[in-house]
Amino acid sequence: MTFQQHVSVPHLTTALTGPLQHIESHLLGHQVEIEAWFRSQWLKTPAPFYTSVDLRNAGFKLAPVDTNLFPAGFNNLNSAFMPLCIHAVQSAVERVCPTGRRVLLVPENHTRNLFYLESLATLVQIITAAGFEVRIGSLLATLDEPMCVELPSGRSVTLERLVRDNSRVGVAGFDPCAVLLNNDLSEGHPEILVGIEQSIIPPLALGWSNRLKSGHFAHYRDVAEELSDLVEIDSWLISPLFRNCGEISFKKREGEDCLLKNATALFTAIKLKYEEYGLTDKPFIVAKADAGTYGMGVMTVESPDELVELNRKQRNKMASAKGGQEVTQVILQEGVYTFETWGDAVAEPVVYMLDHFVVGGFYRVHKGRGVKENLNAPGMHFEPLAFAESCSTPDRSEAPDAGINRFYAYGVIARLAMLAAAREIHQHS
Amino acid sequence: MTFQQHVSVPHLTTALTGPLQHIESHLLGHQVEIEAWFRSQWLKTPAPFYTSVDLRNAGFKLAPVDTNLFPAGFNNLNSAFMPLCIHAVQSAVERVCPTGRRVLLVPENHTRNLFYLESLATLVQIITAAGFEVRIGSLLATLDEPMCVELPSGRSVTLERLVRDNSRVGVAGFDPCAVLLNNDLSEGHPEILVGIEQSIIPPLALGWSNRLKSGHFAHYRDVAEELSDLVEIDSWLISPLFRNCGEISFKKREGEDCLLKNATALFTAIKLKYEEYGLTDKPFIVAKADAGTYGMGVMTVESPDELVELNRKQRNKMASAKGGQEVTQVILQEGVYTFETWGDAVAEPVVYMLDHFVVGGFYRVHKGRGVKENLNAPGMHFEPLAFAESCSTPDRSEAPDAGINRFYAYGVIARLAMLAAAREIHQHS
Repeated sequence: MTFQQHVSVPHLTTALTGPLQHIESHLLGHQVEIEAWFRSQWLKTPAPFYTSVDLRNAGFKLAPVDTNLFPAGFNNLNSAFMPLCIHAVQSAVERVCPTGRRVLLVPENHTRNLFYLESLATLVQIITAAGFEVRIGSLLATLDEPMCVELPSGRSVTLERLVRDNSRVGVAGFDPCAVLLNNDLSEGHPEILVGIEQSIIPPLALGWSNRLKSGHFAHYRDVAEELSDLVEIDSWLISPLFRNCGEISFKKREGEDCLLKNATALFTAIKLKYEEYGLTDKPFIVAKADAGTYGMGVMTVESPDELVELNRKQRNKMASAKGGQEVTQVILQEGVYTFETWGDAVAEPVVYMLDHFVVGGFYRVHKGRGVKENLNAPGMHFEPLAFAESCSTPDRSEAPDAGINRFYAYGVIARLAMLAAAREIHQHS
Repeated sequence: MTFQQHVSVPHLTTALTGPLQHIESHLLGHQVEIEAWFRSQWLKTPAPFYTSVDLRNAGFKLAPVDTNLFPAGFNNLNSAFMPLCIHAVQSAVERVCPTGRRVLLVPENHTRNLFYLESLATLVQIITAAGFEVRIGSLLATLDEPMCVELPSGRSVTLERLVRDNSRVGVAGFDPCAVLLNNDLSEGHPEILVGIEQSIIPPLALGWSNRLKSGHFAHYRDVAEELSDLVEIDSWLISPLFRNCGEISFKKREGEDCLLKNATALFTAIKLKYEEYGLTDKPFIVAKADAGTYGMGVMTVESPDELVELNRKQRNKMASAKGGQEVTQVILQEGVYTFETWGDAVAEPVVYMLDHFVVGGFYRVHKGRGVKENLNAPGMHFEPLAFAESCSTPDRSEAPDAGINRFYAYGVIARLAMLAAAREIHQHS
C-alpha cells in the first residue's frame, strides 16, 4: 500500500560497515510512541511558526547540522504540497491572532537576490491562499517608494517601507494584526520593531544576535537523548557531538589554546564512536561562528592542528560572519558525512516545517563539492530537488529505506531539531 | 501562478440565463473576509471530527443537499491529498486526547459492502499514519471471532467484537483513548456505548436517531444568510428552500393535506426566485425522510399533486428508511439541478472535511441518471472521480471558474454546511 509514486529519491551510497537502515527501522517501529511524544512536547513548548532544518545522512548516522527559524527556500518545495503549507499556516495563525486578517512580512534586506525574493513570493502566496491580506514591510532605509521586483517565475513582489505609528508598525494604509519576521536579525533588533503592541513571530529574542548555535545544540542533545530512549537507539546516531569555545579572535590569534584543547577532545570522542561501530571513515569536525548564519565563517578540519595552522586568508574568512560581525565565539561540531547522491552529485536534505507540521523539503544537489563540505556556503551553487513525497506518510508495509519511510525519518529528526528550538524560545520568553 | 495542473474537472453545462460565475467571483473576491469569519466561527462552535457534504452545482446556484457526520467514501479521495488528511487528523485528535495513542473505530455493520470496507481501510491507514494505534470494534452481535476481510485494493480490514469492561469499551487487549464513530446510529444508541468514560467522536447525540434534516437545514439557512451578507450575494444562491411536515404516514395516507399545502407553498417560492433570475428551468422539489440517511425514502417531484398521487410501490418505498424505520416526518426541499457533466454523464461533487480542513472530494459520475435525480440512492452505480486539486488553493489571478477556484467555492459551501452541523452539535451538547 502506497500513498504516492516513488520518484526523485537520491541514492544512499554508504560505507557498508555502518548499521544501515538501523535508524529508519527503529523510527518506523516506534512511530506511535514518537508521535504521542511529540504531541505531548508541543503542549509544553509550542512549535515555532516556521523552521527549516539542514540534515546530513551518512547512512549510519542521520543528524541536523543547522536549524533556521527564519527560513528562505520555500520556492524549492514541491508545489503539490502547497495545500499542506496553507493548512499549517491556518493552524499557526489561529493560535496567534485568530480574528485577524492582515499579516505583515518583514524580509531580509536583499533586493537583488532573486532566489530569496522567489521564496518571499511563495510565502506571500501561501499566506494569501490561507485567507490573509499580506504586505511586505522592508527595513531598508533607502526605500522611499514601493519597489516592485519582477521575478524569473513570472511572479513579482512589492517591497514597501516599514513605518511606525506610536506602538504599531505597518506599511502605508495597512495596519497588520501580526508581524511575521523573515529576517534573522543578525545585526541586532531593529529599533522600529522594539516594543510594538502587535505580535512578532518568531519573537525578536530568537534572532541570531541573541542565539548561539551551541545553545541550540545543547537543547538538541537533550531532546535527542529523550527520543533515543523512546526508540531504543544510541543517541549518537542522531546527534552530532560538539564543544564550544569562549572568546576567540582568529585575527589576533587569541584563544588558540582553547580551540586546540576542545578540538582534540572532540576528535577523540568521535574516533571512539567510529571504532565502536566499526566505521573506517576518517572523522572530521566543522568549526563555525557560534552566533552566525548563512554559512559564513564555516570551516571543515580533519585534525586539531589545522585549526591553528590557518593562513591569513582563512583567518580573515573565519573572522567575519554575516553583516560584518566579527566572529568571537566558535562552536566545534562533529562533521557528519553526506552519503546521499543524485547521479554523481552530493545531495543534502533540507526539511521545512510550518507550525508543528512537516510541509516538505528539498535536496541541495551540488556537483562540485565533496561529501564532507558545507553545502550552504557563500557563492555555492546547488540545484534544488524537491522531495517527491510527503514526510507524513510512513508505511510499515514497505522497507525501512523506501522513499516514504526515509522521508518520515527526515521529518522525525527535523522535528526533533524544531523541538530543541521550541525549548530555546521557551527559555528566552 | 498555479499550484497544480488542471485536469479532471467536469464541464459545467448551464442554461446560459443564470448569473454564471457570479457565486465563484463573489467568494473569491471576499476570500479574506470568508476565512476570517470561518476562523471566528470555529472558535465559537468547533468543527465536527469529520464531515462529508453532497453539493449540487446548477451554475446559477451552488448548494448542499446532504451533510454526513459519519462519512464513508474516503477511498475515493485523491491519494495525493493523504498528507492533508493525516495532518488534519493530528490537529483533531490533539484537541480530543492529546496524550492518547489508541483509537477505536466503530463502523457500520456492513461486512459484505466492499466499497464501505475500502473506505474503512483508508480511514485506518490515515489514522495509523497520523501516529495512532487503530483497531476496529464492531457492534455486530454475530462476530464471535475477529473477521479479516481481504479487499479488492489488496488491503484488508479486521473487524473485532466491541466489548465493554465497566465504564470502558475496547476490543480484546486494546483499551482506547477515544472511540471514533463511523456508524450513523440510525437504529438508536447502542447500549454498549452509553455512559462510557472514553470520548465518543462525534457524540452519540449526533446519530440520525436524534437528528432531523430540517434541523440541520434550519441552521444552514442561518449560516448561509450570514455568509451571503459578508460576500454580498442573495442567500438563495447558496441555500435550498425547504419546508417540513410533522407526523406523516405514507402507508396510511395520513398527513397528505399538510404535504400538499407545504409543497404548494414551496413550489410558489421557487417559481418566484426562478422568475427573479430569469431562469426557464422547471422547478422541482425533493421529498425525504426527515430523520433518514443513505438516500432511502427520497423522491423527486415536479408538482405538488405528485406527492398525493403516489402508487402503492412508491408509498412503500417512501415509508421505509435505513434499518427498517418507518418514515414519519418528511422534509420537502427545493431541488437543485446538477449541470456539471463529465463526458455525457452527470457529475455531483462530494466534499470531505477532517476537523475544519477541506481534505479533498470526488465527483459521483453517473451515466444513467438525470440532472435532477438523487445520485446517492440504493442500488445506484456511480464512478468516483477524485478532485484533481485541493480546495484550499484559490488563485485570484485565474478566472473565477478555473478548476482551483471552483474547488475553492465547493470548499466554502461545504464548510458552511459543516458550520451548520457544528451549531447542531453545540445545541445537542
